[in-house]
Amino acid sequence: MATKWGIYSAGKICHDFVDSVMSMKTTDHQFVAVGARKLTDAQAFAKLFDIPKAYGSYEELAKDPEVQVVYIGTVNSQHLPAAKLMLENGKHILMEKPLTINTKQNEELFALAKSKKLFAMEALWSRFLPSYEFAFQELAKGTIGDVLHVTANLGFPNADVIRVATKELGGGTVLDVGVYAINIVEQVFGGEVPEKVEAVGHLNKNGVDFDFAAALQYKNQKTASISCHSMLTLENEATIVGTKGIIKLGANFHACQKVYVNDKVHEFAFPEPIVPTVYGSTGLCYEANEVRKCLKAGQLESSVMSREASLTISRIEDAIRKQIGVVYDVDPPLQL
Amino acid sequence: MATKWGIYSAGKICHDFVDSVMSMKTTDHQFVAVGARKLTDAQAFAKLFDIPKAYGSYEELAKDPEVQVVYIGTVNSQHLPAAKLMLENGKHILMEKPLTINTKQNEELFALAKSKKLFAMEALWSRFLPSYEFAFQELAKGTIGDVLHVTANLGFPNADVIRVATKELGGGTVLDVGVYAINIVEQVFGGEVPEKVEAVGHLNKNGVDFDFAAALQYKNQKTASISCHSMLTLENEATIVGTKGIIKLGANFHACQKVYVNDKVHEFAFPEPIVPTVYGSTGLCYEANEVRKCLKAGQLESSVMSREASLTISRIEDAIRKQIGVVYDVDPPLQL
Repeated sequence: MATKWGIYSAGKICHDFVDSVMSMKTTDHQFVAVGARKLTDAQAFAKLFDIPKAYGSYEELAKDPEVQVVYIGTVNSQHLPAAKLMLENGKHILMEKPLTINTKQNEELFALAKSKKLFAMEALWSRFLPSYEFAFQELAKGTIGDVLHVTANLGFPNADVIRVATKELGGGTVLDVGVYAINIVEQVFGGEVPEKVEAVGHLNKNGVDFDFAAALQYKNQKTASISCHSMLTLENEATIVGTKGIIKLGANFHACQKVYVNDKVHEFAFPEPIVPTVYGSTGLCYEANEVRKCLKAGQLESSVMSREASLTISRIEDAIRKQIGVVYDVDPPLQL
Repeated sequence: MATKWGIYSAGKICHDFVDSVMSMKTTDHQFVAVGARKLTDAQAFAKLFDIPKAYGSYEELAKDPEVQVVYIGTVNSQHLPAAKLMLENGKHILMEKPLTINTKQNEELFALAKSKKLFAMEALWSRFLPSYEFAFQELAKGTIGDVLHVTANLGFPNADVIRVATKELGGGTVLDVGVYAINIVEQVFGGEVPEKVEAVGHLNKNGVDFDFAAALQYKNQKTASISCHSMLTLENEATIVGTKGIIKLGANFHACQKVYVNDKVHEFAFPEPIVPTVYGSTGLCYEANEVRKCLKAGQLESSVMSREASLTISRIEDAIRKQIGVVYDVDPPLQL
């Protein structure tokens, strides 16, 4: 039986998620309903992707008994309220990154999911790409020896996009693209929590960061360097350096289709989209398979993108934000 | 008339410097003497490169009236004493990087050079490479727009080499290779002093760093990320990112022979060595031409590698060392 999805929001990332899953031409996934704030938006979205039901409110989506799991693709500031609404109504959730605004909200979300015995995962889709699976198999095989350093940089000129520029929407580069750079470091270092996070960055007039650079120190001689930007297109590569060589995730590394193992390239193409994508990637589909796999096995957590991994990532996000001075209204009071 | 050089030390970098200058097959430079602690070392060096005079002490080199300018290639901890000996005896100096151990020593060296009206320059040879000249011409032309970010990483597995591992010799990655990464950032940002330097790193059992990562913040929305290592070969590239594109100095960027301007490659070959080089580069020759040019023009300072640039670089070195806890005996007391 197909996994039955509801879609929270008719926005761009939801467009690409549905587009991507449909491009797999699989019967494993079925989109049963989409909800948006405006009914006409939901209806247009439903029509485009041939989804049977369209709702003009998220409450209706939450109450639809046919919906098994909800993909939430609304703005960052709405992630926790959206998760609560769905979890309270018995829906599993796949939450577009960043899971929420901060670690406190993440803990609240996971505690609720746990109490309701529901699946909840941050949609860090990079982890489920065939390119990442290949790269991590190579790392596990010891192809580049002991990994001691990771470099990741990611930047797109989107400083003027409202969701990125606005503090009330959970804007800023840390949560927009920094999450991907932190994600690869967290995954390479196997969930280890850094001993030190040292960051610099600049804030826009709304008080959110339009760039940052961070140096991370881990135990056992491990370090990482991260640079992110919303005014520049950076090289957008992630480089994993070991004692016996280098594995590089080619641009754009968060949607990686080329992995360089000591300069030998391995290519991993995404499916062709059924309609043109907004963000240019149909790599979003692979995470849907992980959700289905977990649900079928009765697992409320993915081992590839665990809840603890999301918490470690958000702790690093919090630390970077604290150092460069980005404070959201929902952040807990600063420890003095 | 040829510029008349003395060579301070018969070690590896002096070998490559002389090798490189001779490989230019020019009559502009003449090596008149080499000095070492052991006469036999100086004699072997002199024989290899057909240098007329070999001295078993640096005092003799300093007193040789024929020597006009001395290239100093001894261990870091000996840089200031060596500079003093030569300057006190009226010799111009070209000092292998890092100029000295810290900013205080640099200031002392430059004050002495100034009082003696002698030329003194840090041998940051990268700045004089044809590849750097080309890259900086492109930057000046605005080819990649406004530069807002620089990334540089440099690492070689040399943690066990005594001069790198030993604190008394001025060891550590900051002074060994970090200087090159800091140099390119300093040059790109036109001598600007960073507002913030945030660094992490690990120390060996002798108390010097075997790796570090640093994030630098500059005014007007500029940042830089630096990673250096003595246990790994990193990618060893420097990436300069502007609003209209990227200029990348290919590996090894401090001895760059390939410049990528928005992915179009431009190649710059070094001369063929006259005998095999130790470090694999004959790119050291170009700085010698700068020294000659300045001396002929009566300039005691190079505009390409100014004294102020050396001081800015050493201030960043000091800041990184302070944060990661590398303290040399000659460092001034910490400000509490």
